[in-house]
Amino acid sequence: MRRHSHSIIKGQGGELVTLAASARQASFAVAGLSESVKNDVLLKMAGALEAAAFDIIKANAVDLKAARGAKLPAALIDRLTIDRKRVKEMADSMRAVAALADPVGRVISAWQRPNGLWIHKVKVPIGVVAIIYESRPNVTADCVGLCFKSGNSVILRGGSEALRTSWCIYSILKDVLRAKGIPEGAVNMVSTSDRSAVESLLKMDSYIDVVIPRGGEGLIRYVADNSRIPVIKHYKGICHIYVDEFADLNMAERICYNAKVQRPGVCNAMETMLVHQDVAGRFLPGMAGRFREAGVELRACERSRAIIKTARKAVENDYRTEYLDLKLSVKVVDGVDEAVAHINEYGSHHSDSIVTENYENALVFLRRVDSACVYVNASTRFTDGYQFGMGAEIGISTDKLHARGPMALDELTTYKYMVFGNGQVRE
Amino acid sequence: MRRHSHSIIKGQGGELVTLAASARQASFAVAGLSESVKNDVLLKMAGALEAAAFDIIKANAVDLKAARGAKLPAALIDRLTIDRKRVKEMADSMRAVAALADPVGRVISAWQRPNGLWIHKVKVPIGVVAIIYESRPNVTADCVGLCFKSGNSVILRGGSEALRTSWCIYSILKDVLRAKGIPEGAVNMVSTSDRSAVESLLKMDSYIDVVIPRGGEGLIRYVADNSRIPVIKHYKGICHIYVDEFADLNMAERICYNAKVQRPGVCNAMETMLVHQDVAGRFLPGMAGRFREAGVELRACERSRAIIKTARKAVENDYRTEYLDLKLSVKVVDGVDEAVAHINEYGSHHSDSIVTENYENALVFLRRVDSACVYVNASTRFTDGYQFGMGAEIGISTDKLHARGPMALDELTTYKYMVFGNGQVRE
Repeated sequence: MRRHSHSIIKGQGGELVTLAASARQASFAVAGLSESVKNDVLLKMAGALEAAAFDIIKANAVDLKAARGAKLPAALIDRLTIDRKRVKEMADSMRAVAALADPVGRVISAWQRPNGLWIHKVKVPIGVVAIIYESRPNVTADCVGLCFKSGNSVILRGGSEALRTSWCIYSILKDVLRAKGIPEGAVNMVSTSDRSAVESLLKMDSYIDVVIPRGGEGLIRYVADNSRIPVIKHYKGICHIYVDEFADLNMAERICYNAKVQRPGVCNAMETMLVHQDVAGRFLPGMAGRFREAGVELRACERSRAIIKTARKAVENDYRTEYLDLKLSVKVVDGVDEAVAHINEYGSHHSDSIVTENYENALVFLRRVDSACVYVNASTRFTDGYQFGMGAEIGISTDKLHARGPMALDELTTYKYMVFGNGQVRE
Repeated sequence: MRRHSHSIIKGQGGELVTLAASARQASFAVAGLSESVKNDVLLKMAGALEAAAFDIIKANAVDLKAARGAKLPAALIDRLTIDRKRVKEMADSMRAVAALADPVGRVISAWQRPNGLWIHKVKVPIGVVAIIYESRPNVTADCVGLCFKSGNSVILRGGSEALRTSWCIYSILKDVLRAKGIPEGAVNMVSTSDRSAVESLLKMDSYIDVVIPRGGEGLIRYVADNSRIPVIKHYKGICHIYVDEFADLNMAERICYNAKVQRPGVCNAMETMLVHQDVAGRFLPGMAGRFREAGVELRACERSRAIIKTARKAVENDYRTEYLDLKLSVKVVDGVDEAVAHINEYGSHHSDSIVTENYENALVFLRRVDSACVYVNASTRFTDGYQFGMGAEIGISTDKLHARGPMALDELTTYKYMVFGNGQVRE
């Protein structure tokens, strides 16, 4: 069987163009599939993943051996590892996508013009989506599920360290397409160990409609700087929580602790805590104590350090740093205006929260912070497709066009206008 | 007065950065203005344009003299000309924008999560919009009106041949901002006679959120190829009308005539007519006669030329050409499948129409033609913000992300999530 060969397409030059052209061609067919056909395929894919768990784990063992040989960091090896539990999770996630409502064909709005033209704004698939990702091989299955359910063709380019695992997963899913008579161009994988294939892909704007890079800031910047195709992305998450003078300080402590400590390595974790000068004296000592217990290193401004003397001095650049670690920048501010100004200047337009019982300050913060997600009295950790109730997540955008914040099925569609006439001509 | 000096900012290097940074800074203030304040400013701008009609026409005379001296084509000189009637139109258009509903603050959707988080998806301004346009100086006023009403800062870069007129209009509008105490960075104009300023602008992705180029394909390609900022655009309009075997042939003749002849120089005019083989013999002779009377040159396939013998032979490239003129490509096709395939291959994803009385063929066409606007039994000439009932138009997009088809106020906004909690933390 093809999926046992672990053969790697050297998808350069002509082959890559053929692949992209077949993705485009298949996209017209996939766009027209009914929801029941798509769900049937997704459920079969889920079953096929579970049935082939042994193959996936065997392929993964080869990747893991190479990773250990190359002495890759433990965290990366963890992300790379696929066991029976993770195969089950992939399959369940595919079933969850099957259960989500299909956005395609939904009429966003419709109206009639005085001349009788009846205009419908209708959700349709985007077309061909390219996903460029790093080490997690389960992203392969997740992206196939979401793109297929939303009626798009997908071109995957996974990270080299997970190549054999991703290829095995891809081959299993492709076998299902083949068995179901779906054009194979609907799902594609390009795999080479260098970046030249990515560079070629990023120029194929006549075949590919959007690129979604998923991974570290280096990869994302590379994609954004080299793409002729629109890119939806977030570089990083420098998320803030502002503890207002009117905050419930117990709530503030719970929220700040959660946003920093619960999972520090993710983009919606807090990286900077801003505290109103009038509550800093009451709030910071207890908060700093809890952070100390959790092993969080604080980098604080002068006014904060007058209260929490053990904190290291923050330098300007700390406020622009995404630690992704048990580190936190702390700054005392004069009030909500300074908090908003700081966030808009130093933040990454991802997720920011105010803790306050003051109605006016809450509104000012919600309106003026220029971020994808702004919160009152909640942890920034909720910026996530599942937490938002979308049932999935293909990424988070800090861009302003097309999609902002968590992206799932809806954000994998665009719209077109369907206009029903009965002979209208322009005067 | 400043507007009489016709001085031109040499907006290069440092000055251009200062301008873009001030646009960004002002965008926060403009985003927070109430609709009534914005409308008041727009109505004052309308009045100021009419009051300064003499100044505008005087500035325009200088541009026109230079244009005539440079022997620019008559059509371009017509687009460049501003008389009292056109000043009145600009002012009226500003008043019409004031009368449109403000999209900012509209809740697109809102839902509550099981944990009590109340998530609102809310329309907000994009931020800073750059518009790069060519010869029509009235675009200056139109773009200022639409961007200001939607709460955005705008950076204008007009064509060199209309520079003095555009600058005069810009100065009048800027005077109104100043008198009303609105941050001046809300409206900006960069004007140099070379493209290096445009090139610099297109790299300023930390200040500018979106670029909208308006003009010929050359300008638009230049902008798209050189921009680090997202661009919303259409390169060209190769619009089709497919006359189906089940068409009402009288209706088809009216629609095709309208789409080609009523205003041939615009992007939503028909460039290719596709005719079902079974009706070609009945339809083409009469249609060709009407086109002949209107001075339309036909470029036809072999099967068409068997019926309309006077038509010139079409070459492959004709089907990829936007004539913007009284010329038309004609092709006989086997049926709706070939029509759809031709349109998706040769078209520009702008506007395409089927004329048919057959329900199934209408649906196939609507679903499978991959264009911004697809019509049944109507002229493609309706693809226009005003004709769609948007009350304005800042451009037409054939891109798939963010906005597709005619763009007006709604398309100058993005959204953000405002999330209301009462202490929620992530488990």
